Amino acid sequence: MKENVKNILSQLTLEEKASLCSGQDFWTTKPIDRLGVPSIMVSDGPHGLRKQAVDVDHLGMNESVPATCFPAGVTLASSWDRDLIGKVGVALGEEAQTENVAVLLGPGANIKRSPLCGRNFEYFSEDPYLSSQIAKHYIMGVQSQGVGTSIKHFAANNQEYKRMSVDTLVDERTLREIYLASFETAIKEAKPWTVMCAYNKLNGTYCPDNYRLLTEILRDDWGYEGLVVSDWGAEDDRVEGIKAGMDLEMPGNGGRNDKRIIDAVNNGKLTMEALDKVVERVLSLAFKGTEEAKEMTFNKEEHDTLAKNVASECMVLLKNDHQILPLHNKQKVAVIGELAKTPRFQGGGSSHINPIYLHNAYEEIEKISSICYAQGYDLQADEPCETLVAEAIQCARDNEVVVVFVGLPDRYESEGYDRKHMQMPKNQVQLIEALSEVNENIVVVLANGSPIEMPWLNHVRAVLEGYLGGQAGGAAVAELLYGMANPSGKLAETFPIKLKDNPSALNFPGKEDKVSYQEGLFVGYRYYDAKEMKPLFPFGFGLSYTTFEYTDIQVDKDEIADTDQVNVTVTVKNTGDRTGREVVQLYVRDKVSSVIRPDKELKEFAKVELAPGESKKVVFTLSKRAFAYYHVGIKDWHVETGEFDILVGASSANLPLSTSIKVNSTVNIKKVYTRNSVLGDIAQHPVGAQVVQQIFGKMRDMFAGSNLFDGDAIEEMGSTSTLRAMMMFGGMDENDLENLLEQLNA
Amino acid sequence: MKENVKNILSQLTLEEKASLCSGQDFWTTKPIDRLGVPSIMVSDGPHGLRKQAVDVDHLGMNESVPATCFPAGVTLASSWDRDLIGKVGVALGEEAQTENVAVLLGPGANIKRSPLCGRNFEYFSEDPYLSSQIAKHYIMGVQSQGVGTSIKHFAANNQEYKRMSVDTLVDERTLREIYLASFETAIKEAKPWTVMCAYNKLNGTYCPDNYRLLTEILRDDWGYEGLVVSDWGAEDDRVEGIKAGMDLEMPGNGGRNDKRIIDAVNNGKLTMEALDKVVERVLSLAFKGTEEAKEMTFNKEEHDTLAKNVASECMVLLKNDHQILPLHNKQKVAVIGELAKTPRFQGGGSSHINPIYLHNAYEEIEKISSICYAQGYDLQADEPCETLVAEAIQCARDNEVVVVFVGLPDRYESEGYDRKHMQMPKNQVQLIEALSEVNENIVVVLANGSPIEMPWLNHVRAVLEGYLGGQAGGAAVAELLYGMANPSGKLAETFPIKLKDNPSALNFPGKEDKVSYQEGLFVGYRYYDAKEMKPLFPFGFGLSYTTFEYTDIQVDKDEIADTDQVNVTVTVKNTGDRTGREVVQLYVRDKVSSVIRPDKELKEFAKVELAPGESKKVVFTLSKRAFAYYHVGIKDWHVETGEFDILVGASSANLPLSTSIKVNSTVNIKKVYTRNSVLGDIAQHPVGAQVVQQIFGKMRDMFAGSNLFDGDAIEEMGSTSTLRAMMMFGGMDENDLENLLEQLNA
Repeated sequence: MKENVKNILSQLTLEEKASLCSGQDFWTTKPIDRLGVPSIMVSDGPHGLRKQAVDVDHLGMNESVPATCFPAGVTLASSWDRDLIGKVGVALGEEAQTENVAVLLGPGANIKRSPLCGRNFEYFSEDPYLSSQIAKHYIMGVQSQGVGTSIKHFAANNQEYKRMSVDTLVDERTLREIYLASFETAIKEAKPWTVMCAYNKLNGTYCPDNYRLLTEILRDDWGYEGLVVSDWGAEDDRVEGIKAGMDLEMPGNGGRNDKRIIDAVNNGKLTMEALDKVVERVLSLAFKGTEEAKEMTFNKEEHDTLAKNVASECMVLLKNDHQILPLHNKQKVAVIGELAKTPRFQGGGSSHINPIYLHNAYEEIEKISSICYAQGYDLQADEPCETLVAEAIQCARDNEVVVVFVGLPDRYESEGYDRKHMQMPKNQVQLIEALSEVNENIVVVLANGSPIEMPWLNHVRAVLEGYLGGQAGGAAVAELLYGMANPSGKLAETFPIKLKDNPSALNFPGKEDKVSYQEGLFVGYRYYDAKEMKPLFPFGFGLSYTTFEYTDIQVDKDEIADTDQVNVTVTVKNTGDRTGREVVQLYVRDKVSSVIRPDKELKEFAKVELAPGESKKVVFTLSKRAFAYYHVGIKDWHVETGEFDILVGASSANLPLSTSIKVNSTVNIKKVYTRNSVLGDIAQHPVGAQVVQQIFGKMRDMFAGSNLFDGDAIEEMGSTSTLRAMMMFGGMDENDLENLLEQLNA
Repeated sequence: MKENVKNILSQLTLEEKASLCSGQDFWTTKPIDRLGVPSIMVSDGPHGLRKQAVDVDHLGMNESVPATCFPAGVTLASSWDRDLIGKVGVALGEEAQTENVAVLLGPGANIKRSPLCGRNFEYFSEDPYLSSQIAKHYIMGVQSQGVGTSIKHFAANNQEYKRMSVDTLVDERTLREIYLASFETAIKEAKPWTVMCAYNKLNGTYCPDNYRLLTEILRDDWGYEGLVVSDWGAEDDRVEGIKAGMDLEMPGNGGRNDKRIIDAVNNGKLTMEALDKVVERVLSLAFKGTEEAKEMTFNKEEHDTLAKNVASECMVLLKNDHQILPLHNKQKVAVIGELAKTPRFQGGGSSHINPIYLHNAYEEIEKISSICYAQGYDLQADEPCETLVAEAIQCARDNEVVVVFVGLPDRYESEGYDRKHMQMPKNQVQLIEALSEVNENIVVVLANGSPIEMPWLNHVRAVLEGYLGGQAGGAAVAELLYGMANPSGKLAETFPIKLKDNPSALNFPGKEDKVSYQEGLFVGYRYYDAKEMKPLFPFGFGLSYTTFEYTDIQVDKDEIADTDQVNVTVTVKNTGDRTGREVVQLYVRDKVSSVIRPDKELKEFAKVELAPGESKKVVFTLSKRAFAYYHVGIKDWHVETGEFDILVGASSANLPLSTSIKVNSTVNIKKVYTRNSVLGDIAQHPVGAQVVQQIFGKMRDMFAGSNLFDGDAIEEMGSTSTLRAMMMFGGMDENDLENLLEQLNA
């Protein structure tokens, strides 16, 4: 194919090349019939296929072809299950292939910086490692079916507010370690056919015009060989975009930009080489999409069952006092809340799927047990309705257990705008409070795409976070409530107690068309750890109907070079009486660092199934990246020689196992000493150490007659004083100083 | 004098000029005898005079002449009393004049960014308005006696760790609104003879080499005409320093830098004009110091009494349950804690005074009431001593009330290094806990220079924050405890519950030789407000033995131009049964702003004395600055037209009175519209508003057939979409867009 593409490229006119830089319309690429260049179709995802039902309309807003609606990104990530995500990918690939769609526009790998981002439900996590692992397995699944993906939105598009004009200001380490890291592994290891370029500016330059982002980082650093497509309407300056490596502008622009490209080449503002690179990648994608296309069908029922099983693996049991769950079918149960019958199972915007089936929890529970139902609130309103509440109270009074379905209505969460607060509608909050006054056995089932405040938490016995469960979410909820499935999801994000607790609170969504990520590396649990702040529910948290015990952490080496690997083994045992699946999490802490680092970071995880009484050894392999930070000076990941703690357990806040290991750097970063180096740093050097001891001796003598400082103070102060300042105390003269520096820097 | 200086300047050789750029030794400037240029002496302050007792030794570390030790900066600021500070200044001026000291090296006006800064005890507040007001009145007081001051450390020297090498990174608005504002008013209105340049780098350049700081801001923007002196040993590159406007290098360098200056002039790297400016200012100071010198004596007893009265106005009553205080002299009282007999009354380092008198609380209380005393702990140790605790428990058991003197030992707080935590020594904490188990009437008296954690707070009845009370602090404590004085100090800083709560927690003291002020404007209460985080004690808080009532807030205008002033009147009444003094605080809130602003900011305060039942009207006058933020674009303070809340009350967390006022800007800042302006912004323009309404109409039609977004979502999303993106939806073409922009920018 590569040769064919080169051959065709050489035959294209400048006009044809220019035309290939943008789409034919909303959803397809441009063909060039005379040279046999095909047109391929792309369609929205990510958690299902949104392909236009009839003729492609100008805006691509028509009702779409029915497709299996899988759980949304937030839900999928809570599975912490790479294989499961791979299966979802395969199913999505089958459906896209069936519909002749060459590229599915997903997954979304943006980091959840704030709980308010309107599109959080499409994204995976606040943690880049988890997010990138989920994205990687999604991509591998879809692409195994000959359908491409588009990892999006690249990069630092972490809010909807002013997404087309906001300048995201983020320092290099934070960008590399958090926001880009969430894409990096997925892109390097799963090789998505396309990367979708985001709307926003990044550090002053629009992402689609950003050479540093799209060429230096994505292609030069990461070795990406696929195509970059603009988010729909993201391209700002098409000529700058081509220079930056932004290959395909979408949607089509009616030729508006073709002339600009042609003029730029003709007047020397754009090189033919730069244009050719872009066109070559567009041609490659078109041929690849065509070559991998095949006839396919899929089994709707099987996909529906998969959607249910996936949802069941994803939902998170947040609270279960007195083991009120699982319910048994002899219990008298009140099911309350309009969301039980009208499920909220996906978010608003371009990801909105037309589902093939739709299961609601009410009907699914009714199949298991006879129940009483009350609507409780009007999903279209925020204000309480007395009649509905009265009915609900009646229903709650007469039953042993009350299962309340609440959450965020469609209008609360969508692409295009952010939430302003973290509250549920007032009528739902008041309903819970009212019900808790007449029945203490309240079970709350949540439907939402992002964290909410739970002022009612102490008044309920159980909370099942159902998130946005896809078309079969209602069935999954019923199975989980009644113990036909055992919850095994864990939070891929922290739930703060209140909005202002979250790390972006002072700088979200920004003002003056810019947003500054002042919290830096301290996103999600990295922040709550560093601030010693108790969240409502910590990152990685989730309960099961059984219990697990962690023992026997072992490393196969006590000390490694940063080029080596180390295996960490732990034993996990099911100490309860029912089969369950546990997400085992491994975090790494750098004990001492010369740079600011989070207290600990997730570096590995595994999901294991255990029968009652069963034990399994879980082995994790860690290599350099698990210990490294991004070194801005050497422009590479770097491990500082020293001790690292390895912590393993059930959540970021519950890590019963720990051990440590020494990692030795194999990279020698030369330290430069100057007259403004402090004595404490100079003392690190063998020659410097001697000199510093002499200086400290002199200082102690000098201050001996004074009561200004005590002895410890002099060393404390001295070690953070500069060499230059020593001249003031007569400790050395200019010549001594120059000689010393020469020796230190030799 | 000015003419004389010009005249002498014209007669100086290059060598003489170079020599004047640094001191003669540690404490004096260089004379030029042939031209009658005198030498003057400077001495450390700020809360007393630290003048070398005998011959000036090389390092200036000898025992100093006895002087009145007033309360430290932290304590003084808690008075919130401009007149009182002025009186302290006068007394300090008298002592300096008596000792022939021309310039007293203070006050310290750095902002308390972190509770850990080792030198916090010398500084005033976390709030720039309060800090600058205190500094201003201190300077006016001292200088009224013909003695100069040196406001320090300019600027952004908010930690001791690596103070000589750290690069302080702080954005322009934060610098102007917080860190520089703390100096600005004092410098503009009190005109200190000198400004002391800090050790650290500011945004990449050493403060002494920083032209932007020392010339553009200090002299060009603020109109400062005095001299800039380096902190001792701060000068980095003397030639760059002269270019930057760093006039006098201290201490003397033994001529080391003279040759550099001469060479730089000779080889054209330094202009004679730049050198002359510096030399002229050094000459002016030397002559001014000499001319204002006069014979003086002072009354040591009167200064001691002043020191006591000042301390009594400064100490802060933090808790007083069951009105356990004031004590009466019939009560059986146990006085416990070594600090009762060995007071900690000042901090360590260059400000360390050799006090004329020293009163300890133990002896002062003994004069009032018969007491039992136990040492309780060893001040030199952190670990508890069982014998001392047992003695103390015995003493506590036998008495009605237990007054425990605790705090931070000398070694915990000093110039030169920062604290690592906010805890008191373990033996003191355990002592309080042990005592509280045998006696519920525990009164804690604290001696410390910066906030501490109080895990024991719920186990004691009262807490008197004595801070570092100076030589007569012990007498002030006794008078306050027994009600001979009524506490009226209020906190000039927030006490967080724990260290990690504080706004700088993620970025203090920095790594890699830099510290980034990522919390921006959100320093002190600005942060706790914005994060809705409850501190242990809020900024501005302090109790009295009487109570006050706030009523009748009135503004004399509902709407003003930003060039006008408005008077705010409130009535404060003493509703208790003893005379008291209340600090009335006024905060301003911008209700809506296009830039990020703190929730509210202190803009005025007054301290009023009220007899029982007495009411007084307090009038505050607010002008532009009270409503303004620093506009980086126009490089000036700016008020955005709109509504402002005015809040008045007893602390930052207790503001019972509020009203509002509209302020109209008289400054027209032209808005520039581009293709990347969002519709929401364009709708602000009359022409734009029409166009945006049309576009919204079209969008609603377009999306009518889709279930992707609901109606509200379209407007929400639309108003943050760019004009450019509208072309994608066919809402306009390039010509329409260009025409619209022309009209908007006309």
